[in-house]
Amino acid sequence: MLGDVIELSVVVRDLEGAIDRYTRLFGLTVHHRGASEEFGFKNAVLPLGVGHIELLQPTDPNKAVGRFLAKHGEGVYLVGFETADIPAAVQRLRRAGARVDDRGKEIAWVHPADAHGVFVELRKRERYD
Amino acid sequence: MLGDVIELSVVVRDLEGAIDRYTRLFGLTVHHRGASEEFGFKNAVLPLGVGHIELLQPTDPNKAVGRFLAKHGEGVYLVGFETADIPAAVQRLRRAGARVDDRGKEIAWVHPADAHGVFVELRKRERYD
Repeated sequence: MLGDVIELSVVVRDLEGAIDRYTRLFGLTVHHRGASEEFGFKNAVLPLGVGHIELLQPTDPNKAVGRFLAKHGEGVYLVGFETADIPAAVQRLRRAGARVDDRGKEIAWVHPADAHGVFVELRKRERYD
Repeated sequence: MLGDVIELSVVVRDLEGAIDRYTRLFGLTVHHRGASEEFGFKNAVLPLGVGHIELLQPTDPNKAVGRFLAKHGEGVYLVGFETADIPAAVQRLRRAGARVDDRGKEIAWVHPADAHGVFVELRKRERYD
């Protein structure tokens, strides 16, 4: 049901400083940048193997990413797994009692408390052309 | 320099309970179990895609895994990236000022404080025959 890890989202205090460090240390490059008002962050996507690392800086301390930073400090916020059939996976998870937030066939999230502290994302592989 | 995420180590309070949940929710199976007196944990390895999830329960509250659990609670402890040439990667990381603990050509670790809270492991792909 779960495939490869294709996204690793890392919450950081300073997006530009983190980009500088990840490019210098690990030889990664930024593919694109973005922001989400809904989830309260700005981000940069750095391709890696079959997936990517996403660096996330909170822009609203009262939303999930900002609250995570205040509570846990910098670190892994979310892990995205390639999932061939997301609706079937969501059905299985709900039958097993997990809380799942789904948005159709492309993406879904499992509550971290139901996966021993791991914020699991079910997702499709992206292309970085 | 870094390739796919091939290991995700998750610290849990109760290894048996976590195995039960990860197998029920995500359809994973345990390939093998182990323990490390040096690092103070017992673990189970559950293959996933090209890599695996490792569930870790501390067995010594004074060693790193136990201290992580006390400070952060359950969650992602370490991320292992496939690395073709580990000595070259270690050299690059040290030149860039990162603290690296290496054990030859098979494995090395970057201090989490040098990677924005991510405990990065450089490793080789394993076989799960």
